[in-house]
Amino acid sequence: MVERLNHLIESQQLDKELLESLFAEADFFKSNPKSDLLKGKVIATLFYEQSTRTRLSFESAALRLGASVIGTENAKEFSSVAKGESLEDTIRVISGYADCIVLRHFEEGAAKRAAVVSRVPIINAGDGKGQHPTQALLDIYTIEKELGRVNGLNIACVGDLASGRTVRSLCYLLGKFGGMSVTFVSPPNLRIGDDIKDYLTRHGVKFKEETDLNHILPETDVVYLTRIQKERISAADYEKAHGLYVINQENFGLVRPDARIMHPLPHVDEISLPFETEQKDKRIAYFRQVDNGLYIRMALLSHMLK
Amino acid sequence: MVERLNHLIESQQLDKELLESLFAEADFFKSNPKSDLLKGKVIATLFYEQSTRTRLSFESAALRLGASVIGTENAKEFSSVAKGESLEDTIRVISGYADCIVLRHFEEGAAKRAAVVSRVPIINAGDGKGQHPTQALLDIYTIEKELGRVNGLNIACVGDLASGRTVRSLCYLLGKFGGMSVTFVSPPNLRIGDDIKDYLTRHGVKFKEETDLNHILPETDVVYLTRIQKERISAADYEKAHGLYVINQENFGLVRPDARIMHPLPHVDEISLPFETEQKDKRIAYFRQVDNGLYIRMALLSHMLK
Amino acid sequence: MVERLNHLIESQQLDKELLESLFAEADFFKSNPKSDLLKGKVIATLFYEQSTRTRLSFESAALRLGASVIGTENAKEFSSVAKGESLEDTIRVISGYADCIVLRHFEEGAAKRAAVVSRVPIINAGDGKGQHPTQALLDIYTIEKELGRVNGLNIACVGDLASGRTVRSLCYLLGKFGGMSVTFVSPPNLRIGDDIKDYLTRHGVKFKEETDLNHILPETDVVYLTRIQKERISAADYEKAHGLYVINQENFGLVRPDARIMHPLPHVDEISLPFETEQKDKRIAYFRQVDNGLYIRMALLSHMLK
Repeated sequence: MVERLNHLIESQQLDKELLESLFAEADFFKSNPKSDLLKGKVIATLFYEQSTRTRLSFESAALRLGASVIGTENAKEFSSVAKGESLEDTIRVISGYADCIVLRHFEEGAAKRAAVVSRVPIINAGDGKGQHPTQALLDIYTIEKELGRVNGLNIACVGDLASGRTVRSLCYLLGKFGGMSVTFVSPPNLRIGDDIKDYLTRHGVKFKEETDLNHILPETDVVYLTRIQKERISAADYEKAHGLYVINQENFGLVRPDARIMHPLPHVDEISLPFETEQKDKRIAYFRQVDNGLYIRMALLSHMLK
Repeated sequence: MVERLNHLIESQQLDKELLESLFAEADFFKSNPKSDLLKGKVIATLFYEQSTRTRLSFESAALRLGASVIGTENAKEFSSVAKGESLEDTIRVISGYADCIVLRHFEEGAAKRAAVVSRVPIINAGDGKGQHPTQALLDIYTIEKELGRVNGLNIACVGDLASGRTVRSLCYLLGKFGGMSVTFVSPPNLRIGDDIKDYLTRHGVKFKEETDLNHILPETDVVYLTRIQKERISAADYEKAHGLYVINQENFGLVRPDARIMHPLPHVDEISLPFETEQKDKRIAYFRQVDNGLYIRMALLSHMLK
Repeated sequence: MVERLNHLIESQQLDKELLESLFAEADFFKSNPKSDLLKGKVIATLFYEQSTRTRLSFESAALRLGASVIGTENAKEFSSVAKGESLEDTIRVISGYADCIVLRHFEEGAAKRAAVVSRVPIINAGDGKGQHPTQALLDIYTIEKELGRVNGLNIACVGDLASGRTVRSLCYLLGKFGGMSVTFVSPPNLRIGDDIKDYLTRHGVKFKEETDLNHILPETDVVYLTRIQKERISAADYEKAHGLYVINQENFGLVRPDARIMHPLPHVDEISLPFETEQKDKRIAYFRQVDNGLYIRMALLSHMLK
């Protein structure tokens, strides 16, 4: 029996045994997407930063397990927060209404602060430049489903690696698996942080840094593209990085036939392929990746609350 | 057995056989407004344009059928759309979370584009100046409930007929019934489009155009009033049209005792009657019309998803 | 059998027999927070003024009773209201979709106006400077739970008593119980209204007015603190009142060991105690008070709708 998580704040909390248990549960929910497991439970989605996609994914997962949902996507502007209430007080209040709080916040460390005072489980759904552990969960679950393994793969993480939290969270999970090689592809000014490199070194994960995407495509099993997030970096950095890493008809041929293109979505012009290709080429994995998010979140909610 | 609709994009899709089946179902739900028919299903209300009334009507219909609801009324401002994601990608994502998407969009044709990529049924809940087929459904259902028939009636459609999509959608449905006469009452600069006139001609529906409301009231069975939509026309057009077509105590006597006043609501000053009259005179049909919206949407969701 | 309330508009409607019945129900739900009593019912939360806390409390209460929820927290900005529709028409429409409307509005008297036209029960969740009767309900329920009685207590109401509706609503309920003494602590320019003083006099409740909080702390059983509401008073009044009534480490020692500090929350700097104290000192009652809000609202919804 795998020990139950009280809160999910960061990817490092997830060990391999728990991951395998969650993956098995996710497989089950993929075939059985309706359940009454959490009937009578109330899940709160408390979003201080808008993320309709993540919110709807969690809400659908909760509802498909028979739970009910309360929530707000405007927690920052609204009501008691605007009146000056601390995050801690808001959490103490909401944890009286709900059996679990899914928290999205604009400040790194917010989920950890929430967990200290909450009387119910907190799930971090993204905290500033911090982490987004359920994104990492669905990412690595997708890699295993698409390629049958994580071990031995060449995985390229591409984009603004300095501020993108999805790659950070993913790296912490990769450290639990080991056996793969990671290539970080970014402009020199938006490189992955030393904390991540130290973590990978400590966990025996091989990695290297690159600036040229096309150069490494032919040897890559998983191309994990990310959007250059205009809203998180300076205008100058954005101008330099924007358009630098693109998959389009010119370089799509460099992607190996059995490789996969992944993306946390939304994608903008960093993927520029014909409609038909995006719909039918099996290398395009990101829509299946989104679908997996629903099943892995069902698995997580079920693990933490049933 | 009536063939099931995959998507509902425009009124033209609804043939008379299907309409009669939906009306029978709506009658049933009027007497039995609670059901578990859609238990375990998740309905997404994806509104790029605010319409609390339409959204709540759909959500109540879904919930009364035992389904769950996820959604947003701020899809335009929020999250991935603001980051530049295409409607198609958003739909591909949401159709992984929900069993049906109710879409309101500010661009004509959006629902059709959504249906191309969606893996689940799309219901058009209004697309720009395009259509609003469930409004037409509830309108014609109301006419039949209030007057016992559609055939042989004189129906006046009044207001800004150039940009009002409810009248457009209603006309497409009237074409399926036939046997009535339609009078279009509008200022010369806001006349009904030629496409609608051609359609009615092709389907053998008699129609004429008028500019004077009082002139035609005594011969009208259904006065279908609409609001001059300030937000969709120029200030000059608005100034000319505003206040032109009003039902008030002065001309209410011209309305036949067995006629009905309908309105898609919200109404502003185009209806200016005493509270008592609006509450009690049986010619005021628009609050019953709104109620019918709930039952016809239950019928539609049940038809498409059960 | 206690007579059923049709609408809950103001505290005065609640007599002692009904209060005791609601308190017994709330006790029951505290131990049994899941139920199917309202299965198939749809509750609408129609908020013209943001109050995430109150909304989530009502929604959680409804969901825990097995009901479904539709709603909006932006009723003022959104859709038909922005188009000029009257509150009365909106209520007539929504009362066709839902079995009960929980209404928050910025205008005093709005709930009463809504009740006139609604076909379903209206619950006032705050109307401008008017009332907030379910807050009063949870307040007095908390006093009875924390201190075992209301009779004979010294209750101090502290803050901007001119515009704070929670104290107003609470006083109307205290009038039903009697036997306590009330002290109103406020700056001279923000004193409690004469209508409340007249009401208390008529109902035989002793009261006095004070300006110095520390002076009365040693003789007080319940310190009911409120936030100075910047958004409801002039800048000059706010400057004078802000920081005047604070519980902090210096005067917390004046609070009797068996007394309770209550607050409708959110609190800002009017309570400034160490984290440990707020978490553990049993005199800090406001987080339990919030929790009680859930159970008393379950009791109320159950009373009005089952």
